[in-house]
Amino acid sequence: MAEPHKPAKIKHRKNRLEAFSDGVFAIAITLLVLEIAVPAVRGEELLGELAHEWPVYLAYFVSFMTIGAVWMEHSALVDALDHIDGVFMRLNLVLLLFCAFLPFPTRIMSEYAQDASGERVAVVFYGIVLLMMTLMLLVMARHAQNEDLFGEDLDDEHKEQARVKYQLLPGLVAYIAGGALGLLSPRLGVTVYLLIAIYLAIPLREVTRLYRKRG
Amino acid sequence: MAEPHKPAKIKHRKNRLEAFSDGVFAIAITLLVLEIAVPAVRGEELLGELAHEWPVYLAYFVSFMTIGAVWMEHSALVDALDHIDGVFMRLNLVLLLFCAFLPFPTRIMSEYAQDASGERVAVVFYGIVLLMMTLMLLVMARHAQNEDLFGEDLDDEHKEQARVKYQLLPGLVAYIAGGALGLLSPRLGVTVYLLIAIYLAIPLREVTRLYRKRG
Amino acid sequence: MAEPHKPAKIKHRKNRLEAFSDGVFAIAITLLVLEIAVPAVRGEELLGELAHEWPVYLAYFVSFMTIGAVWMEHSALVDALDHIDGVFMRLNLVLLLFCAFLPFPTRIMSEYAQDASGERVAVVFYGIVLLMMTLMLLVMARHAQNEDLFGEDLDDEHKEQARVKYQLLPGLVAYIAGGALGLLSPRLGVTVYLLIAIYLAIPLREVTRLYRKRG
Amino acid sequence: MAEPHKPAKIKHRKNRLEAFSDGVFAIAITLLVLEIAVPAVRGEELLGELAHEWPVYLAYFVSFMTIGAVWMEHSALVDALDHIDGVFMRLNLVLLLFCAFLPFPTRIMSEYAQDASGERVAVVFYGIVLLMMTLMLLVMARHAQNEDLFGEDLDDEHKEQARVKYQLLPGLVAYIAGGALGLLSPRLGVTVYLLIAIYLAIPLREVTRLYRKRG
Repeated sequence: MAEPHKPAKIKHRKNRLEAFSDGVFAIAITLLVLEIAVPAVRGEELLGELAHEWPVYLAYFVSFMTIGAVWMEHSALVDALDHIDGVFMRLNLVLLLFCAFLPFPTRIMSEYAQDASGERVAVVFYGIVLLMMTLMLLVMARHAQNEDLFGEDLDDEHKEQARVKYQLLPGLVAYIAGGALGLLSPRLGVTVYLLIAIYLAIPLREVTRLYRKRG
Repeated sequence: MAEPHKPAKIKHRKNRLEAFSDGVFAIAITLLVLEIAVPAVRGEELLGELAHEWPVYLAYFVSFMTIGAVWMEHSALVDALDHIDGVFMRLNLVLLLFCAFLPFPTRIMSEYAQDASGERVAVVFYGIVLLMMTLMLLVMARHAQNEDLFGEDLDDEHKEQARVKYQLLPGLVAYIAGGALGLLSPRLGVTVYLLIAIYLAIPLREVTRLYRKRG
Repeated sequence: MAEPHKPAKIKHRKNRLEAFSDGVFAIAITLLVLEIAVPAVRGEELLGELAHEWPVYLAYFVSFMTIGAVWMEHSALVDALDHIDGVFMRLNLVLLLFCAFLPFPTRIMSEYAQDASGERVAVVFYGIVLLMMTLMLLVMARHAQNEDLFGEDLDDEHKEQARVKYQLLPGLVAYIAGGALGLLSPRLGVTVYLLIAIYLAIPLREVTRLYRKRG
Repeated sequence: MAEPHKPAKIKHRKNRLEAFSDGVFAIAITLLVLEIAVPAVRGEELLGELAHEWPVYLAYFVSFMTIGAVWMEHSALVDALDHIDGVFMRLNLVLLLFCAFLPFPTRIMSEYAQDASGERVAVVFYGIVLLMMTLMLLVMARHAQNEDLFGEDLDDEHKEQARVKYQLLPGLVAYIAGGALGLLSPRLGVTVYLLIAIYLAIPLREVTRLYRKRG
């Protein structure tokens, strides 16, 4: 730990974890569009069909914003780390596994959106994958704290950890609530996922700051 | 805000925004090829069928050059920034949402190119997504200016801002014109999109400089 | 070889090899999800169908963890190198060829999982590709050793080389065993691949260290 | 041009060109596998069908090695540059356009491989795209030379330029020859493309050096 060249080597490995993760996030978020089927209708019905496909766009939007929010949390977390260890790399791999898997439940939710009984299964299945993504981020943040992966810059450390925890924990609870609601009313479940995605994506603190500054 | 290590941290976050955005741009631009269907004809008709598919190649070309031009503008804008904030990250995410979505309207335009009434809807739908991409870039540039995200290197700042604005504003107006024209004559609309893509992609100033230098 | 700027140039080329390889690994690992077909059943049968599809999820999991493990080995190997040469770049390209090819045998294995005679062929074909990936990593590590691509930091060098060798050689033997077993009993073969993926992905040494620290 | 901070800014822009290009190369090379269709035969015919599909694997191999070789040339060229300009960025975009387009002619060649008259068209169409990729690399190298984009490190400059030129020019001629041969005998044409890919991928000089060192 006291060799002069060691930190540089560890920092490099963090760079590749970021590059690989950014790649998977970027691909998963972009592959979502392949799930949207081109309507097979005659020209005069195209506009109506495009409007009729709104559950597909909604599923696209929720998945896009959720992966985007997870990417931002991941970015903030890894950014705050001084170095990473082998366990963190594997936990990260499991996070990416669920993230790369998301286009599949998204497709299922789009396709069974107009089917009363299928919709129920689809919404819960989808919610479980979203839940696992948030859960893995929390596990990673906790592991980083236990193993002292954060730098010695204590103020930053606490700030970032708190940020990740306070922003993720409500998400976790809300996904469980959304999944449970989805069993009763699938549409209500999806609405909850949508609200979580918007909540995770909107930078409440910064927006407040901007308004205050101008007001 | 006065800690000596802070700028390095912020700069790092900018790096990940670039890496993630480059990933999404690169994937969206490369996925476009998947939309081109292999002709299902006998061998002797292959050449004719390939030639007959020109609207598909045209849609491919327009989408490719537009994403390419947006990438170049994005690259110039982020490059000129000193640091980014949370709002900029979210605006960037919305830009990427439209960018990653583009393969879908591209596919629709390719498929309804020979259908009189469908073509109209397809061309306007496509134009709206192109418009949103340009609009988001402008919003990002404006936010960066309002929040002083540009560095203190004033000359560069003004130059870059001006460049982004002067090059994007005509694009914005042209997309609205192209969409409106598309309602009357879809082919005219597509021609406008093509001209915008070429205009955005050709480095007028640099080409002028090269000719002047040699002439 | 004695110019002062040479090392910087070589280091840069290593960066691009990493960026390109990370891209291919990330895309191959994310494309796997496209192989999972959405069930075409009525809503009430969706849950049963999703459960019935377990071989598809298993194939997804094994392929994901194998690519993930290869990425981690690749990361550790290239990280330990001081510079790379042209032969190393080509060997790397062959590794990526098998890695990018993996979604194809994965798809075949998923589709022939319930077909007695097809399963046998699928499992062996799949195992050969996994074997080639591990083999190429070993060839790359050996070439790096023969050509002195590792830095002068001898302790690190030996440690890393040993790590790659000791972790890969059993994998190589196990893939051959798994393939041979797959000829007799396809399910047994897949189980072996699964165990190898878990073995490669679990950081035995670090887990031991964590337990020891707490116990 | 004499400001002290300018070089850093230009270098950064080169980094994003590399990141974006690496992304497109990596995705194009990995998407190729999606073109390989899973055989729809009964289990006992799977082995025979996999063997029967050899033109598909050949097309995969040739396309993979060609993109890999172009990536290596691109890497060597950009690495040798001191900075880039706007024209170089656009030329690069056109190179990427052909590169990202390659999966389409690859698919056509795979599908028309057993069709006497279709094969002729497919092989020539495929060769034209390969030719354009090589041509764009040459145009980029030439532009870089004319505009003094190479650094002042003259020896390196000449060495690299020469390398790109001497290795690409024969490729260019060979592609034209291959395309012409493809008109007479498609199989001969493909063989020529295969030989060019192998020629571009094998590091003749380094292999010679290795043998000499050991012999």
